[in-house]
Amino acid sequence: MKAYEILMDMAVIMVCAKFMGLLARKLKAPMVVGEIIAGVLIGPCLLNFVQPSEYLNMFAEIGVILIMFSAGLETNLTELKKSGLIALVIACVGVFVPLGCGTLLYIGFNGFDGIGSESFFKALMIGCIMTATSVGITVEALKEMGYLKGRVGQTILSAAIIDDIIGIVVLTFVLSMKDPSSKIGVVCLKVFGFLAASFILGFLIYKIFKVVDDKYPHTRRIPIIAVSLCFVLAYVAEEYFGIADITGAYIAGIILCNVRDAEYIDRKVSVNGYMFFAPLFFVGIGLKTSFSGIGAETILFSLAFVAVAMLSKLIGCGLASKCFKFKNIDCVKIGAGMMTRGEVALIITNKGLSLGVIDPSVSTAVILLIIVSSVVTPVFLKYLYSKSPDPVEESE
Amino acid sequence: MKAYEILMDMAVIMVCAKFMGLLARKLKAPMVVGEIIAGVLIGPCLLNFVQPSEYLNMFAEIGVILIMFSAGLETNLTELKKSGLIALVIACVGVFVPLGCGTLLYIGFNGFDGIGSESFFKALMIGCIMTATSVGITVEALKEMGYLKGRVGQTILSAAIIDDIIGIVVLTFVLSMKDPSSKIGVVCLKVFGFLAASFILGFLIYKIFKVVDDKYPHTRRIPIIAVSLCFVLAYVAEEYFGIADITGAYIAGIILCNVRDAEYIDRKVSVNGYMFFAPLFFVGIGLKTSFSGIGAETILFSLAFVAVAMLSKLIGCGLASKCFKFKNIDCVKIGAGMMTRGEVALIITNKGLSLGVIDPSVSTAVILLIIVSSVVTPVFLKYLYSKSPDPVEESE
Repeated sequence: MKAYEILMDMAVIMVCAKFMGLLARKLKAPMVVGEIIAGVLIGPCLLNFVQPSEYLNMFAEIGVILIMFSAGLETNLTELKKSGLIALVIACVGVFVPLGCGTLLYIGFNGFDGIGSESFFKALMIGCIMTATSVGITVEALKEMGYLKGRVGQTILSAAIIDDIIGIVVLTFVLSMKDPSSKIGVVCLKVFGFLAASFILGFLIYKIFKVVDDKYPHTRRIPIIAVSLCFVLAYVAEEYFGIADITGAYIAGIILCNVRDAEYIDRKVSVNGYMFFAPLFFVGIGLKTSFSGIGAETILFSLAFVAVAMLSKLIGCGLASKCFKFKNIDCVKIGAGMMTRGEVALIITNKGLSLGVIDPSVSTAVILLIIVSSVVTPVFLKYLYSKSPDPVEESE
Repeated sequence: MKAYEILMDMAVIMVCAKFMGLLARKLKAPMVVGEIIAGVLIGPCLLNFVQPSEYLNMFAEIGVILIMFSAGLETNLTELKKSGLIALVIACVGVFVPLGCGTLLYIGFNGFDGIGSESFFKALMIGCIMTATSVGITVEALKEMGYLKGRVGQTILSAAIIDDIIGIVVLTFVLSMKDPSSKIGVVCLKVFGFLAASFILGFLIYKIFKVVDDKYPHTRRIPIIAVSLCFVLAYVAEEYFGIADITGAYIAGIILCNVRDAEYIDRKVSVNGYMFFAPLFFVGIGLKTSFSGIGAETILFSLAFVAVAMLSKLIGCGLASKCFKFKNIDCVKIGAGMMTRGEVALIITNKGLSLGVIDPSVSTAVILLIIVSSVVTPVFLKYLYSKSPDPVEESE
């Protein structure tokens, strides 16, 4: 492939992704759904304008790394410290209940071959996909109604942040077990070794970066060094610890999230993201989608997958909040707010696909989950708040 | 190569490029020179941290496209209309004298096989490399002394813009002749066909884009559509007209340079450029540099190349301005101001290298030219202005 030949593909992808993304937003669906559909439209499945290629894959991978870095950067550690036990418990339950339910769902469809078997690993991956909350849609809905600053809203927000961190730790564990010969002890050692090393080194890096940042605020070198750090951590995670590169990128984001220029870095990373890399990832998912293998069982699995993913969050987080003396309806609000899924679920799916431990048909189920949860959640929340407005917000 | 493996290379390249670029700027040399030296340092030649790869090449190519697009976007058509005949004549002479001298230089070293021969084509490419003025350094020097708004300063600025456009047309012609079987009539037809089509279509695109831009100013879709247009034109130029992709990208920039959001687009493109793509291009040149083939003749050729490139601009532009009743010393100032070379000379060299019509050793000569011209010009201009300050500026 000559270098210039990729230009046409990129142009088509960028324009279609933007157009379909805007269309999706108009229809109150998440923009990523529009971008995926753009990929299906222009891909081999339908119009065949663009074929998946190694180069597009490379761009998409960098897109994923940048998205995870950005997610880490946007973590509000100060907020997190304040949120305390309630959010922590809700987040834990919100990770482990869907993880368990997702695993059981896969076993229900495909049978159980014992812990440590390949099919058990596949089942765990399905569970992992279900763990990642994406509160973007919820936040928007709460903001619109003016309830974001209420107790329920703040609890959802804090729980979602912790949920992300726990989710990534769980994913890291599961992915480290991909090699069937790996012993659980070695896996634990690797994961804890990496986490410990990155938190100790991370603190050092944070201190050094802070000095550089304070000396040269808002200069180009700041985001360049930051992104390089993200790339290095992603590489080191994969190469030396056998841990997912996305974990490394996310941790790089957390290390730098308290730096004064964190928002500035995030903005620069986002420009690269939204123009080239991120659309190539989401469109790429669409490009690789194939309708050929879809039969009755796939449809049944997809529907069950969506139902289990949403109910496990709703019931898990709802019951967890009940322990902290929330009113019944407020427990439902918290559970409902945690139901939405987004980019991270797709990224985990993609990771599983590239490792060959997830069937291509799961993509369809995940896309369906994103669409359904993002449409249902805001409607459901509006209904709940109309029945019982948040008292904290009313007194303001 | 696994996707994550490129991350480490990118991180090393980005950080080293930035560091060496800043060091170069401290030493009053152009930043690109620092970036190239970074490539030599970390490349197979010396430390061997990073090897050239297909993926890095792809990024570098996109970098080139974005740089040329940006150069087109920064064209000030309004200024151009005002500048008139003087600048046009100086620019023409400033393109054709170096083109002729460069061609003769190559023939002097390698002999003449007749017009239409491969060696004549190679000679023309050497001429083309010499045509592209890069006034960045000159503008900075004039600004520092407070003479940019003077008559001489404005003449240099306008001439440099026209110089770029004529230079790209000449390059387009020369590159279209790369196929030895191509008839000059067909080449002319293709080039004029492309230019005519892009100016007619360009006007249409400009009108449509203006409507979109006025409706959605400063939204993300504006730079996305703009960059896509640039990619499409670059692709169409290569694929259907046999014309260099960089010409297409440059024309896309000119088409959009009068749009209200031109500067906004340029800024977004630059963020992508300086973070990922552009450093990969300049560092890539360093990576591919090899000292193994450098003998006495290469050194002699390089020195002659630098001397011819600088003197042909100095004398050509100087004499041309003499026709417009400039004082002798002001003619020298104009000639001196046009001597500097930069990115575009490198881009043309790279184009020639990838087509196999330029010897790798020419890279070294071009890098030397950029360094020498960027160091000599400001010093020389300061000396000239100290002898004869610009009267226009003094009266202000």
